[in-house]
Amino acid sequence: MYAGLKRNPQKNDVALVVSDVPATAVGVYTQNLVFAAPVKLDRARTPSTRIRAVAINSGNANACTGERGDRDAARMAELAALACGVTGAEVLVLSTGVIGEFLPMEKIAAGIQAAAGKLAADEAALVSAARGMLTTDTRHKLAERSLEVAGATIRITGMAKGAAMIGPRMATMLGLVLTDAALDTADAQAALTAAVDDSFNCISVDGHMSTNDTVLLLANGAAGGDKLAGADLAAFRRALDEVCLDLAKAIPGDGEGATHLVTIDVTGCAARDAAHRIAKTVAESLLVKTAIAGADPNWGRIVSAAGYSGVAFNPSGVSLSVNGHLLYRDGAPVPFDAATVSAAIKDQRETSIVMSFTEGNAAVRFWTTDLTAEYVRLNADYHT
Amino acid sequence: MYAGLKRNPQKNDVALVVSDVPATAVGVYTQNLVFAAPVKLDRARTPSTRIRAVAINSGNANACTGERGDRDAARMAELAALACGVTGAEVLVLSTGVIGEFLPMEKIAAGIQAAAGKLAADEAALVSAARGMLTTDTRHKLAERSLEVAGATIRITGMAKGAAMIGPRMATMLGLVLTDAALDTADAQAALTAAVDDSFNCISVDGHMSTNDTVLLLANGAAGGDKLAGADLAAFRRALDEVCLDLAKAIPGDGEGATHLVTIDVTGCAARDAAHRIAKTVAESLLVKTAIAGADPNWGRIVSAAGYSGVAFNPSGVSLSVNGHLLYRDGAPVPFDAATVSAAIKDQRETSIVMSFTEGNAAVRFWTTDLTAEYVRLNADYHT
Repeated sequence: MYAGLKRNPQKNDVALVVSDVPATAVGVYTQNLVFAAPVKLDRARTPSTRIRAVAINSGNANACTGERGDRDAARMAELAALACGVTGAEVLVLSTGVIGEFLPMEKIAAGIQAAAGKLAADEAALVSAARGMLTTDTRHKLAERSLEVAGATIRITGMAKGAAMIGPRMATMLGLVLTDAALDTADAQAALTAAVDDSFNCISVDGHMSTNDTVLLLANGAAGGDKLAGADLAAFRRALDEVCLDLAKAIPGDGEGATHLVTIDVTGCAARDAAHRIAKTVAESLLVKTAIAGADPNWGRIVSAAGYSGVAFNPSGVSLSVNGHLLYRDGAPVPFDAATVSAAIKDQRETSIVMSFTEGNAAVRFWTTDLTAEYVRLNADYHT
Repeated sequence: MYAGLKRNPQKNDVALVVSDVPATAVGVYTQNLVFAAPVKLDRARTPSTRIRAVAINSGNANACTGERGDRDAARMAELAALACGVTGAEVLVLSTGVIGEFLPMEKIAAGIQAAAGKLAADEAALVSAARGMLTTDTRHKLAERSLEVAGATIRITGMAKGAAMIGPRMATMLGLVLTDAALDTADAQAALTAAVDDSFNCISVDGHMSTNDTVLLLANGAAGGDKLAGADLAAFRRALDEVCLDLAKAIPGDGEGATHLVTIDVTGCAARDAAHRIAKTVAESLLVKTAIAGADPNWGRIVSAAGYSGVAFNPSGVSLSVNGHLLYRDGAPVPFDAATVSAAIKDQRETSIVMSFTEGNAAVRFWTTDLTAEYVRLNADYHT
């Protein structure tokens, strides 16, 4: 629904997701010390085995709003419960948008009431709800997988939002993953945490960790059958990983002002955490991001970013390729035709950076965007 | 001198600084694991009591150049020694510019020879040398203090360069501070390290730590008198602090594309390191920097950046002012007129952010720039 939280009435700003039966619900939340009221509420209510609905608004983050913000978040859940015929404690809330303004509760109430009247189990309703969580995103983000388990078909459907204030140190945006699988609560939490770790925690647009980052998984068992275990649970987790990865990649893929989606592969590290730290440091270097925007194979910026990541490595063991062109091998420059590599960057939407080290076998894959003048324009002009 | 390392013959790219007598020399260097050949050479030669000259080039960083780079740096020192009639081991070198290209040694040799022929002890020569270390800087950076010690006048003169790839975790650019004071080597090192900590380590343009960051202090005792001690040494250190602070502030003051010099005061922390980490995280947030470029008092971005700095604090104890306007008090928004605060940011070159916490008495002052589309343009187009 459009409920008047955003200026543009062509955009949705309130959504309601309802499960016909109580669902197991787990979440992964921002690690920002300054976290929003909806994060506080959801964190207190999960893990749970009785969640019936998620009330979502965009245009206002309900963050840095003190005790009144807490009361507003609880009231938002209560309004959704009344509209759906469940109890307030069975509802989770997701908010995203401007920080530091109080939720316009009358608009929220009207929007939730209207959304409850339009609940449907079809694809149009799903797309409509996914659009309701967007802020500066240029497109909605959905991902789906299904799998056969003991004769039943299990579906996993996820939606996400995010285009800036994206910096990974747990979940880093809003994400809501729905499944009709039956899951034990601990299994659900373990599956979501692992999936987030290799997906939403491996993306960055600008390195700024939000106050509202939340990824929720709701599993209501409507597909039938016992709680998943063994090989079935493993198959479910692989499918969940894929859904989260699709959604996560869609965020830098829609990064504000971005003209390139950059994949950074870091290999040969002593531990995954070391590889992650190097990849994140390279991903968040303004000089690396602007070089890619300018189609400049300026590999010195990439190598020097790795050097200040805080990870110990042997500089003579570093090699680097960009879009398949080897530019730096064992700590020394490799002669290459700059015009050719520049053209390879310029002509493709996706840029690949592969950095190898000689400390071990740990690796990570990370996604980011380039940095363009358009990002600056969007963020210098947004708000106020 | 212009020796052909830069494209623009209106710019200097080689400079030579010579002391008539052997000088005590100490340095503070980049903590980047990928450090340049001149850093390796200077680090090995300092502290020293016998330095006679510093050979400087811009346009080429001699970084990521392997063993050939090490030989080139040593050869550069040797060429300066020959030109000045001293020995190679008595010379330090400073290089800055593009990473990953070999030094054009014939141009370096000719430039050093020509510079040696133009050595002079006047202000024009000082400015000329300061211009020789610049890259994308729009102006040269000099600072001076003098003080009376036991009847003698001691002078301290510093020069620095830097406008991007500026991120503080030790020295973060090139700096050369000269004094005619007589100093014990250990005192000189302690004085420089402390001065750098509150100046060059408290600035950031883009958070990208360079491979070449170096600040050198040369003290040749030509002012006469014994080595400084006690109150005289303390007075010298205060003056050195001021010189380093002037130079450090000049760097974000000349930040690429910047339209605001931003001073961030963080107070009330449990330790200086905590205050520094909060200030640095705020300073390097793209969303904070673009908000200032857009004259947007979007304080949520500032508070949320502090929240992901990794420092533990009580969110209900945070207060925030921008240009003297209180926007956030004890963890809750303060009503303010956005147009008035926006105008106050827009109309002034300097922006002040003051954040207070309730964990203790430690504080730090930090300087950064805003982020404009011009920064992106400069760094997307530079090189290649």
